[in-house]
Amino acid sequence: MDNRPIGVFDSGLGGLTGVRQLRKILPHEDIVYFGDTGRVPYGSRSPETIIQYAQQDINFLLSKNVKFIMAACGTVSSTYPLDRAANLPVPYTGVVGSTVRAAEAATRNRKVGVIGTAATIRSGSYDSLLRQLVPGVEIHKQACPLFVPLVENGMVGMDEEITRLAVAKYLGGIRDAGVDTLILGCTHYPLLTEQIRAFMGPEVALIDPGKVTAIAMKEALQALELLADPAKEQGSAEFYVSDTVEAFSASADLFLGQYAGGKVERVAIETY
Amino acid sequence: MDNRPIGVFDSGLGGLTGVRQLRKILPHEDIVYFGDTGRVPYGSRSPETIIQYAQQDINFLLSKNVKFIMAACGTVSSTYPLDRAANLPVPYTGVVGSTVRAAEAATRNRKVGVIGTAATIRSGSYDSLLRQLVPGVEIHKQACPLFVPLVENGMVGMDEEITRLAVAKYLGGIRDAGVDTLILGCTHYPLLTEQIRAFMGPEVALIDPGKVTAIAMKEALQALELLADPAKEQGSAEFYVSDTVEAFSASADLFLGQYAGGKVERVAIETY
Repeated sequence: MDNRPIGVFDSGLGGLTGVRQLRKILPHEDIVYFGDTGRVPYGSRSPETIIQYAQQDINFLLSKNVKFIMAACGTVSSTYPLDRAANLPVPYTGVVGSTVRAAEAATRNRKVGVIGTAATIRSGSYDSLLRQLVPGVEIHKQACPLFVPLVENGMVGMDEEITRLAVAKYLGGIRDAGVDTLILGCTHYPLLTEQIRAFMGPEVALIDPGKVTAIAMKEALQALELLADPAKEQGSAEFYVSDTVEAFSASADLFLGQYAGGKVERVAIETY
Repeated sequence: MDNRPIGVFDSGLGGLTGVRQLRKILPHEDIVYFGDTGRVPYGSRSPETIIQYAQQDINFLLSKNVKFIMAACGTVSSTYPLDRAANLPVPYTGVVGSTVRAAEAATRNRKVGVIGTAATIRSGSYDSLLRQLVPGVEIHKQACPLFVPLVENGMVGMDEEITRLAVAKYLGGIRDAGVDTLILGCTHYPLLTEQIRAFMGPEVALIDPGKVTAIAMKEALQALELLADPAKEQGSAEFYVSDTVEAFSASADLFLGQYAGGKVERVAIETY
C-alpha cells in the first residue's frame, strides 16, 4: 500500500477528463493535477518544445512526491520519448498504450479511426502501435483543430450547429470508410461524445483515452502494490496551473462534472 | 532620417497583417518582426503574464536596434501599461489609439461595434478611449473566440459554412443594434473581412487596426524625422519566432500575401 498521490498533467485543462475518470475508478487515491494553462496548447508546438515542457511538468509533479505519473495529454503521450519515461524515478504512463489496447479489443473489422490535434495526428504514434497490435489494421485519421476551441468555449451541446458542422466536416471521411472503432485522441474530445456518437452511429465504439488509461492505472497500481489504503477515507484532489486560478475555475466544472472541488494554486512552471 | 528598422511584435502570427500594411504604406522601411508562436495565445492569459511576455518581446526588439516599436497584438495593446510604454528608450505604439481615432472619424450615428479576443473585450480598453473621443457613443462589443482558430486553419473563404455560422453567431447582436462602424479588434480578423462585410453589409465601416496603425506610424515617423532615407532601396523584413520556423512558414503566405519573404529565425524569448 502507498498513500502518496497520483500525479496527472496536461497541456491545459483537458486532462481533467482523466482526473474525473480516476476519481470515479480509484476513489481512495489522492490526486495532484498540473495543467499548463500558461503555455497551452502544446499541439501546435515543435517536438523539442513539447519535450521540454513535459519534462518541467514531470519535475513539478515529482516535487509533490507522487507515486505514479500520468501524462493525460495526447500530444505529450505521443511525443515524450519512451527511454526518458523509463528512466523516471516513478512509473509513468501516457494515454497511447491503454488506448490502442482498448481499440484492439473493440474492433471487429480492423478499420480504426483516430482523431486528435494536428501534432498527435502528424506524430503517427497511435498508428505504429495500432499496426503492431492489430495486424492488417486499416487506419483512418484526421486532425480536428476546431474541436479544442469549441469545447473550451462550452459549445458541446447537441443544439450547437457550428459543432455539428465541425463534427461532420472532420468525421465525414472516417464514417464513410466504415470504421467500427474511433479513438478520441485528445483529452477534450470526450466532451463531444454526444455529438460524435450522433454522427458516427451507435455501433461505432468510441475510445476515451482518459477512461481506459484510468482503468489500466488501477491494474498497474494493484500489480505494483501501490494502491492507497482502502480503509483510508475518500481521496482528495489538488490542482496546479501555470496561469490564473480564475481561468481554471471557470472551466473546472465543465471538465470535472460532479468531481469538481479541491485546492487550486498557481505555479511558476518555467522554474522546474 | 533614420535607417534603423521598425520593430513589430505580436503574440503569434496575426501581427503579420500589420507588417503587410507597413510594407505597403512604408516601402523603404526595414522591419524586424517577432511573433511569440511558442507562447501564443496571449488572449486567455492573465494581465501579469501578458505584461511579462510583452516586456520580453520588447526587450528582444530593442536588442535588434529598432527605432520604433509597434505592438500589433490587440491583447498587448490593451494590457501593457501606458506609463511603462512612455519610459521605453524608443517610441512605442499599440493599435488601440489609431484604431479608436479611425472609428471616431468613421462613425456618423455614434453606434460602434468592437470585436476581439476574450481578454481584449474584457479589458474594455477600446471602450474607455472610445467614450473619451466620441461623447455619447453607444458601444456594442463581443468576444469571438472561434475566429482565431478559424483563421489559423485557413477557413477564411466565402464558401466556409462553419465560418459563416460563427460570423452570424458573434455578429448578429451587433448588426441588429445598427452600428455603422465595427472595430476588428484582433490582428487575425482582417483575414475574415470578406465574410464579415457580407454579414454586416457594405454600409458598415470595418476598422482594421493594422492598417490604421501603419498609417499613423507613417505620420509619427515623419513628425519625428525618423523615416528611412527615401533614396534607400526597397526595405527588407526579418522574422523571429519562439517556436519552429516551419510553423511560421506554413502560415506566412496567408498573413503576408504578396509581401511574404525574408529571413526567419527562432529565438529563446524567455531569456530576454
